[in-house]
Amino acid sequence: MHNPVTVEVTRGNRVESRHRGMAVVVDGDGRIVFQAGDVEAGVFPRSACKAMQALPLVESGAAEAFGFGHSELALACSSHSGEEAHVALAASMLSRAGRDETALECGAHWSSDQKTLIHQARTLEKPGCLHNNCSGKHSGFVCACVHQGIEPAGYVEYDHPLQAEIRAIMAGLTGAVLDADHCGTDGCSIPTYAVPLTGLARGFANMATGRGLQPLRAKAARRLIEACMAAPFYVAGTGRACTKIMELAPGRIFAKTGAEGVFCAVLPEEGLSIAVKAEDGATRAAEAMVTALLARFLGRDSEAGAALMVMANRSMKNWNGRHVGDVRVTDALFL
Amino acid sequence: MHNPVTVEVTRGNRVESRHRGMAVVVDGDGRIVFQAGDVEAGVFPRSACKAMQALPLVESGAAEAFGFGHSELALACSSHSGEEAHVALAASMLSRAGRDETALECGAHWSSDQKTLIHQARTLEKPGCLHNNCSGKHSGFVCACVHQGIEPAGYVEYDHPLQAEIRAIMAGLTGAVLDADHCGTDGCSIPTYAVPLTGLARGFANMATGRGLQPLRAKAARRLIEACMAAPFYVAGTGRACTKIMELAPGRIFAKTGAEGVFCAVLPEEGLSIAVKAEDGATRAAEAMVTALLARFLGRDSEAGAALMVMANRSMKNWNGRHVGDVRVTDALFL
Repeated sequence: MHNPVTVEVTRGNRVESRHRGMAVVVDGDGRIVFQAGDVEAGVFPRSACKAMQALPLVESGAAEAFGFGHSELALACSSHSGEEAHVALAASMLSRAGRDETALECGAHWSSDQKTLIHQARTLEKPGCLHNNCSGKHSGFVCACVHQGIEPAGYVEYDHPLQAEIRAIMAGLTGAVLDADHCGTDGCSIPTYAVPLTGLARGFANMATGRGLQPLRAKAARRLIEACMAAPFYVAGTGRACTKIMELAPGRIFAKTGAEGVFCAVLPEEGLSIAVKAEDGATRAAEAMVTALLARFLGRDSEAGAALMVMANRSMKNWNGRHVGDVRVTDALFL
Repeated sequence: MHNPVTVEVTRGNRVESRHRGMAVVVDGDGRIVFQAGDVEAGVFPRSACKAMQALPLVESGAAEAFGFGHSELALACSSHSGEEAHVALAASMLSRAGRDETALECGAHWSSDQKTLIHQARTLEKPGCLHNNCSGKHSGFVCACVHQGIEPAGYVEYDHPLQAEIRAIMAGLTGAVLDADHCGTDGCSIPTYAVPLTGLARGFANMATGRGLQPLRAKAARRLIEACMAAPFYVAGTGRACTKIMELAPGRIFAKTGAEGVFCAVLPEEGLSIAVKAEDGATRAAEAMVTALLARFLGRDSEAGAALMVMANRSMKNWNGRHVGDVRVTDALFL
């Protein structure tokens, strides 16, 4: 097993906290070109694999039938902040399938983005299912069911035909065993399956290259990755990491985070796919690792690479705006 | 070096994330009765040492002169949620010294407690310094200065007489070297010093027992610990860990958290003092470790011990209220 990557958080001239991370980069043939930590251990991809879960929406023809463009498909792959534009677009997706938010089974929560939460608190009595960060994905699920004549009710359950289809798709993409023993329940109630980090990276490499996929699936996969890169606001939201990373190099980076410190990214032109997991589940560590690896493979001296390194080695300020420390990746990510 | 403690976060029947922690328990003589991980490494105590930083307020006679009771002293040791009662009491403390919030140098921020933030968003245009989680501590600083005829302005700076006094007090309590090389800047702009976890635990043991302290300091230390135990709401707030832990066994547990995964606690009757630090800075891991250790030394079968174990091995639910996993401490904390 390779040593894990370390992400340090400093204060003054000392390291205050330290994260360990697993990371893997594969090329278009699925060959490992970088690895750190136990990249064969099972990891719940959580929301990082939403683009895989959105494949039935496109493959089934539902997206085309309902006239979904980049924004709707990006939202179907998103963990959005619950900003008004996200909520409105999710509602619009459902309405085009003749449904509304009562079809959603994701639960409701206030935005986890502070600025959006303050706006929500001032304009809403309480959030609904459309405000759930997964409402775009769930709206896509409902649309995929409706278009195929499948009853959507219960679409979050392990045994629902949609989840069975997603399970088969993800097993094919990642090469991993996806069954009840590998299954947990995600925040939005759908099944999530523990997959080796290498499988996750290879799954996204396959989505980007279409290698080994039926033509319909290859086309749908490319369509979803293109949509996310074309409409990054709808993948996350104002100031969020996925959005910022994709905006740094339009059309050249696909990036998607997941809860508990998972982050996946693809560099389609370079034919590379990245998957990282912070052992302790820390988002700040996952963001540092994925941005550093993107910079490494785009070239740290390129414009996008330099901007990514600023995200990777992030300066931290306190409530008075004083610099108090930094999040920084260690050199192991670059050796 | 002893092995670190592990705190696991599960999903389904698998471990999803894993934290490593350092922990130490000392008795009233400062002897180590439990240790895990590198307990001699320097750790920034952050807000966990606020009761030490509040000693000048009591020792100087300021607290008595201004008529401060349990609630005011607890607030001086607090990281509060910015609830209305916290804000009003901080304002009252300042007014009794003839000052107002313009004397505070802690900066402003919205509450980090979601429920309080929603209330703030609905009732405030923006938060002020009184809403800062450290406003009670800073109000105490201002009161201590005013009472002693020290100009409060600049009281957050390393060279201000108040910080020099706090530095000397903390060096005496912890036995650690506190100088510029060990110094970082805290979120509220005051100096924070890296101290071995053993020093931190011994410092709180000395506060509880008064051992080795001048009578005035011993009395002030006991007074502050008693105040926090008597008014736990003012140490943190509704639903917060410090408040809940102290409410579980009134008068028998002192507990105070700090940023980046630090937690200190004292069992005055048992003559024990606990300090923990999650290596990665995770609050959930620090809470699990400190509650498990409190339960261990109070007896897991006691009423308080059982309630603490429920906090240590915490069940996690998703947005639909479904059980998805648990935070759990490993047996190493009990061997």
